[in-house]
Amino acid sequence: MSNKKFTVLGGDKRSIELINLLLESKNPVNVFGFDKVNKNLRIKQSESLEDAIKGSDIIIGPLPFSILEEQINLTSLLELMSKDQLLLGGKIDKDFSDKCISNNINIIDYFDREEMQILNAIPTAEGAISIAMEKLQVTISSSNALVLGYGRIGKVLSKMLNGIGANTYVAARKKADLAWINTNGYKAIDLYKLNQSLSNINIIFNTIPSLILKEKELCNLNKDTLIIDLASKPGGVDFIKAKEMNLNVNWALGLPGKVAPITAAKIIKDTIYNIIEERKML
Amino acid sequence: MSNKKFTVLGGDKRSIELINLLLESKNPVNVFGFDKVNKNLRIKQSESLEDAIKGSDIIIGPLPFSILEEQINLTSLLELMSKDQLLLGGKIDKDFSDKCISNNINIIDYFDREEMQILNAIPTAEGAISIAMEKLQVTISSSNALVLGYGRIGKVLSKMLNGIGANTYVAARKKADLAWINTNGYKAIDLYKLNQSLSNINIIFNTIPSLILKEKELCNLNKDTLIIDLASKPGGVDFIKAKEMNLNVNWALGLPGKVAPITAAKIIKDTIYNIIEERKML
Amino acid sequence: MSNKKFTVLGGDKRSIELINLLLESKNPVNVFGFDKVNKNLRIKQSESLEDAIKGSDIIIGPLPFSILEEQINLTSLLELMSKDQLLLGGKIDKDFSDKCISNNINIIDYFDREEMQILNAIPTAEGAISIAMEKLQVTISSSNALVLGYGRIGKVLSKMLNGIGANTYVAARKKADLAWINTNGYKAIDLYKLNQSLSNINIIFNTIPSLILKEKELCNLNKDTLIIDLASKPGGVDFIKAKEMNLNVNWALGLPGKVAPITAAKIIKDTIYNIIEERKML
Amino acid sequence: MSNKKFTVLGGDKRSIELINLLLESKNPVNVFGFDKVNKNLRIKQSESLEDAIKGSDIIIGPLPFSILEEQINLTSLLELMSKDQLLLGGKIDKDFSDKCISNNINIIDYFDREEMQILNAIPTAEGAISIAMEKLQVTISSSNALVLGYGRIGKVLSKMLNGIGANTYVAARKKADLAWINTNGYKAIDLYKLNQSLSNINIIFNTIPSLILKEKELCNLNKDTLIIDLASKPGGVDFIKAKEMNLNVNWALGLPGKVAPITAAKIIKDTIYNIIEERKML
Repeated sequence: MSNKKFTVLGGDKRSIELINLLLESKNPVNVFGFDKVNKNLRIKQSESLEDAIKGSDIIIGPLPFSILEEQINLTSLLELMSKDQLLLGGKIDKDFSDKCISNNINIIDYFDREEMQILNAIPTAEGAISIAMEKLQVTISSSNALVLGYGRIGKVLSKMLNGIGANTYVAARKKADLAWINTNGYKAIDLYKLNQSLSNINIIFNTIPSLILKEKELCNLNKDTLIIDLASKPGGVDFIKAKEMNLNVNWALGLPGKVAPITAAKIIKDTIYNIIEERKML
Repeated sequence: MSNKKFTVLGGDKRSIELINLLLESKNPVNVFGFDKVNKNLRIKQSESLEDAIKGSDIIIGPLPFSILEEQINLTSLLELMSKDQLLLGGKIDKDFSDKCISNNINIIDYFDREEMQILNAIPTAEGAISIAMEKLQVTISSSNALVLGYGRIGKVLSKMLNGIGANTYVAARKKADLAWINTNGYKAIDLYKLNQSLSNINIIFNTIPSLILKEKELCNLNKDTLIIDLASKPGGVDFIKAKEMNLNVNWALGLPGKVAPITAAKIIKDTIYNIIEERKML
Repeated sequence: MSNKKFTVLGGDKRSIELINLLLESKNPVNVFGFDKVNKNLRIKQSESLEDAIKGSDIIIGPLPFSILEEQINLTSLLELMSKDQLLLGGKIDKDFSDKCISNNINIIDYFDREEMQILNAIPTAEGAISIAMEKLQVTISSSNALVLGYGRIGKVLSKMLNGIGANTYVAARKKADLAWINTNGYKAIDLYKLNQSLSNINIIFNTIPSLILKEKELCNLNKDTLIIDLASKPGGVDFIKAKEMNLNVNWALGLPGKVAPITAAKIIKDTIYNIIEERKML
Repeated sequence: MSNKKFTVLGGDKRSIELINLLLESKNPVNVFGFDKVNKNLRIKQSESLEDAIKGSDIIIGPLPFSILEEQINLTSLLELMSKDQLLLGGKIDKDFSDKCISNNINIIDYFDREEMQILNAIPTAEGAISIAMEKLQVTISSSNALVLGYGRIGKVLSKMLNGIGANTYVAARKKADLAWINTNGYKAIDLYKLNQSLSNINIIFNTIPSLILKEKELCNLNKDTLIIDLASKPGGVDFIKAKEMNLNVNWALGLPGKVAPITAAKIIKDTIYNIIEERKML
């Protein structure tokens, strides 16, 4: 519990769970911008945006922040807020963020926090594994699984795959990453020589947001290889070629909110608490 | 590859994949007792049961063997077989088995082999985790997961759960099992004192084929706890009480053939090869 | 704490630590049969064996029990004990055990308890790894480590080696063990074909108490291979041949008491508590 | 094998093993600056420094480079080298490095390479564990082990400790590090609140090169706690206070060369190959 008063505005299942978690921690919470009939919402929404914001310390928007536009007039929001209040959201557009600053509104993007992105890699990795389990005709245990990229998601995913018993390959460019991959017990693949290592792979998870699996790479794959692309736009797969070749490609985005909304909400809550603590507001 | 001639009779997706694996290993294979239109079947079925069996060394029935009855007349099968041939099947009824013996037919239940049951625990555990990932609103990582029983499935499942990052609890009766559970890095729970440890559990996997989660235990659970029962009949949960209490119980049987038919087929194939090798028939 | 009165007789460092642990749990403890000047002994020894035993419920001898003979007259011990008392010891000679029974003395060998042997495998495995770290010129991480046997020590040792990052090979005979070895993520070697797998091994840990590494096997080893034999007599190595070949063989017995006396004492204490609990004496 | 000609100058056991590894990879190698009677040296040393350097492409000095001064006149070395040659060494003094540059000598510090420092963390961590196993009266398995710092050594060490079965605590300052620590399955401790978490720790490994364990922290420790300081000067422990308090502190530096000289040499060799490859010299 903090001694702050919160407002949660709009969003998806994850925002609903965030409200529940804040209530469970005995925080006062105003709510606005949800469907009226949402049966998972345990408290009554405020009558108006003005009511929702008045007297609140922390106003929390959804992830991504842009989905709030469908429910709320953002210009009104700016006009209603005072400079004693703090506006939080995830993946906030630069335009809106700039407008806040020029209006003297305190705004922080919680998705910019590194600990948030690290923790978010967990539901992303589990979601990816869940898709793989559902689509594969073999077990992940003993299969040859290849992770492209060794950033946050790559690190968590390779650890989990290894934990289930996959032969875990990880491809990266930097020598330091290759050293870490080997040190952590996986098989390192030099991304520059990716083509040589593709033929016996059962499943590929891409985490790199640039075109990695081009025609040449796709041709080196076994026809049964399952591809799960976790990278944000433009993704890492030549989707058109892959479709032509009848490969099994799944582009999976926004997994945390979909597969584990309560965990995803808890991560946002913990990150917000960290932000507040650092601002000495607790 | 062995130098034996195989016949595969009837069965599910797993039997189809077993045929594929035997063919890939360059074994001669006769096939009979499948739907005529089965498009995953890569070779033509024999014209008759007699054709399928004539000249074959090893006749392989499905798991469970009883599903063969729907496709084939088992009495005819016995009459067609000679004592030079070997009949294999999984979970064969004692009655049929006795009949084979009194007819001088060599019959072996591959599911009685310990290595088969150990390896089969892998797709079972993965299938259970897949269900859990789909049903839970939280990640398995960081959740409190309880495995009831520390037999084959319990061992594999607890290792995988731990590998994904769950707080893994395992309940067993024997002091030796409790020692192993702790030694392997999980939290051991004395099954006799199960009730004291249930309140904070997010997910329970039961592997014990006797009634463990009775009314009293169910009452100690959090309402959101997910229960996955992997035990064969009669299962380990008082299903009627659980339904009354509106608990989320899933009785999941026969997972290997459902979630990973290729792996399940490979396990049968490897076990059959072991049987043949031990009979010095290879 | 139990409500029993204990006597600890003779022994090594481990017995001293057992006394300390019993005292820390607020148990009344008599002590006899230690060197008078033992500075780790926190309490005064009894004046005589008779004093030490009188009024005590549980009399605890060392592991192995035979070392007690050097300090105490065992015949006197038998004469002094009554049938209400319980005598405990580890690896008790059958002769002495029989004599107890014919004298109506309750005697239990705590080392016969399976949980004791499982837990004891931990300090044994750590001790073996400690020796390996000291003797090897390479790290255990990334080295090829071979464990012979998949009993209690084999299981714990292979798990630890894998946890440090070794390429972990385990050789066993039974198909079921080979299945478990693969399932647990190690590389299974059929012990019948051991010779084919020896040439690239950096370190071998033997846990099988029969001659496994004979001349033929030794000849297949790299000259730098380190051998650590953990098996009790006769050990698993042809020591004479190995010496002739100038191989680096270490026969390491009784590791728990040597490398981790406090842990070893705690294991004995926990086992004794289990024994008492099962006898409904607590 | 590369097509380069190497010279190895002076150094410790690790340099000897580096020579062996270069020879095993069929590289031509000159050697100079070792004791004449060194029996581990498989080839004859050059007659003079001039002979050793003439015609060589890559001249390799030891780690730390400063120990070379005892064997060789560094000014002569500079005079003898040409600008087509490359001088490599580890932890080279800035003064000497500057002098090389002003003399147009190509010089690279292989210890500055990140992959080298990552890989070097492995023998460091194993060495630390080896010391702990030797000094502790309890097993590392089940003990409470605390790692201070989550840099390269902290990461490798905590993974190994966890792999052996310790209750692994890691203390760090950054929220992102704390998130990774939890994500990797260890218990994160906020370094700012270290004092609250010290009382039940059996062993502390410090990897932070600044004073962390001051009087206040030392007072919160159990008297039996073992402290192993892996941090370079000034170390992380108030050694004077610790000695006054009779605590068991071990300052362990330069472990890779001491505990696993062959592995340490291999790391240097691989790093040198990486350097050469990147300079398109291979």
